[in-house]
Amino acid sequence: MAPPSPDPSPAGQPLSREDFAARLRAKEKYYHIHHPFHVRMNSGELEREAIRGWVTNRFYYQICIPVKDAAILANCQERAVRREWVRRIIDHDGTSETDSGIEAWLQLGEAVGLQREQLEDSRNVLPGVRFAVDAYVNFARRASWQEAACSSLTELFAPRIHQKRLDNWPKHYPWIDERGYRYFRKRLSEARRDVQHGLDITLDYFRTREQQERALNLLQFKLDVLWSMLDAMWMAYIEHRPPYHCVEA
Amino acid sequence: MAPPSPDPSPAGQPLSREDFAARLRAKEKYYHIHHPFHVRMNSGELEREAIRGWVTNRFYYQICIPVKDAAILANCQERAVRREWVRRIIDHDGTSETDSGIEAWLQLGEAVGLQREQLEDSRNVLPGVRFAVDAYVNFARRASWQEAACSSLTELFAPRIHQKRLDNWPKHYPWIDERGYRYFRKRLSEARRDVQHGLDITLDYFRTREQQERALNLLQFKLDVLWSMLDAMWMAYIEHRPPYHCVEA
Repeated sequence: MAPPSPDPSPAGQPLSREDFAARLRAKEKYYHIHHPFHVRMNSGELEREAIRGWVTNRFYYQICIPVKDAAILANCQERAVRREWVRRIIDHDGTSETDSGIEAWLQLGEAVGLQREQLEDSRNVLPGVRFAVDAYVNFARRASWQEAACSSLTELFAPRIHQKRLDNWPKHYPWIDERGYRYFRKRLSEARRDVQHGLDITLDYFRTREQQERALNLLQFKLDVLWSMLDAMWMAYIEHRPPYHCVEA
Repeated sequence: MAPPSPDPSPAGQPLSREDFAARLRAKEKYYHIHHPFHVRMNSGELEREAIRGWVTNRFYYQICIPVKDAAILANCQERAVRREWVRRIIDHDGTSETDSGIEAWLQLGEAVGLQREQLEDSRNVLPGVRFAVDAYVNFARRASWQEAACSSLTELFAPRIHQKRLDNWPKHYPWIDERGYRYFRKRLSEARRDVQHGLDITLDYFRTREQQERALNLLQFKLDVLWSMLDAMWMAYIEHRPPYHCVEA
């Protein structure tokens, strides 16, 4: 039931800190930036409805992330770690309605022509997206905080994806109000700060070769979460085969 | 985070027992028997690799079902209900290796040309399938036993899907060893017995109109689980776009 099964105890010496970090970074090739849905999105090939679908579904991910981070805190007895990790919750929830990451995403929604209520109503979320996001939250509830922290390392690859959106969307999608891009800009700096903390936790905690392979599988699990979300969106907005009741709703 | 949000408190009188049962049965139109992957499978249009993919991925569902049923027992203080419900666990796990539903599925695997080890190794399961199945198990862990029992009511529609496989597969897929069909035959009678119990629990427990609408959403959630599993298989075996690391593995 636990997301990724570790490889059958790989023999061999532990990887050096540098090699382990390099193996983690090499997982970039499985990042959702390479998913056909994302490739189309980033090269300007998506219709407005598909962009709106992405923003709507991805909002479910946004609102679940601080819950996932709270689950990590709830499993962590180390004050120093909590003190650092709690900033992630505050980044997303804000200290008031106006400065939260979630508010910035709502503004992205408005910029692509959606009403706030359409985003807030999670009944519009595709089931496949919900299952993938919930898998991540449930994993964080049940795993150790170090394992859950490790799974969050897709942030290693996030600054590039945000930067590419900032570079490409304005020219491909001139109909999107540029004020919508605040979320991507905000995450450029936050993700850079967060990733160093998550990476340090991972490099410190996973020491034997078997543990290191486990860490790589945990990162793969999170990559699969992001990938599966786009699979569901591909079915709904490219193949035009959403679950039937989602069309009627 | 809980799977389906109830409809905004629908006004009105509770449905009669008969009408409520009819509304539940009317959900058949969202059953995975209508999913394009299943339609192709049942009309003989799938390649061997796609059939094998289905059997492999569906095995993950099979092995998770008794865990889901154990979660229901674990939340249930009523001896009489547990006494009835525990039979589902025994159906799948057997009283010995030879008489279990899971063993019958392994034989289906062999009949389509798979090794037992390929089925048992859940690393071959597509992430989207895993997330959908895990959503069902996690729901059963956290919901009341009555809600989880209600979500299992896709069994209302199961005898027909098993019968259609028994009717169509032998003519469409003569390369499949007929001894592989024991699982479908076994479930024909078991599902008929189980569904009456699940239906009685649901009709007894969900009384107000709002509760009845909630029950319909719980059944929809389980329908979405089955549907999403086939979405992931469509991506992998029809579109030939599985997550990249699943191809390399």
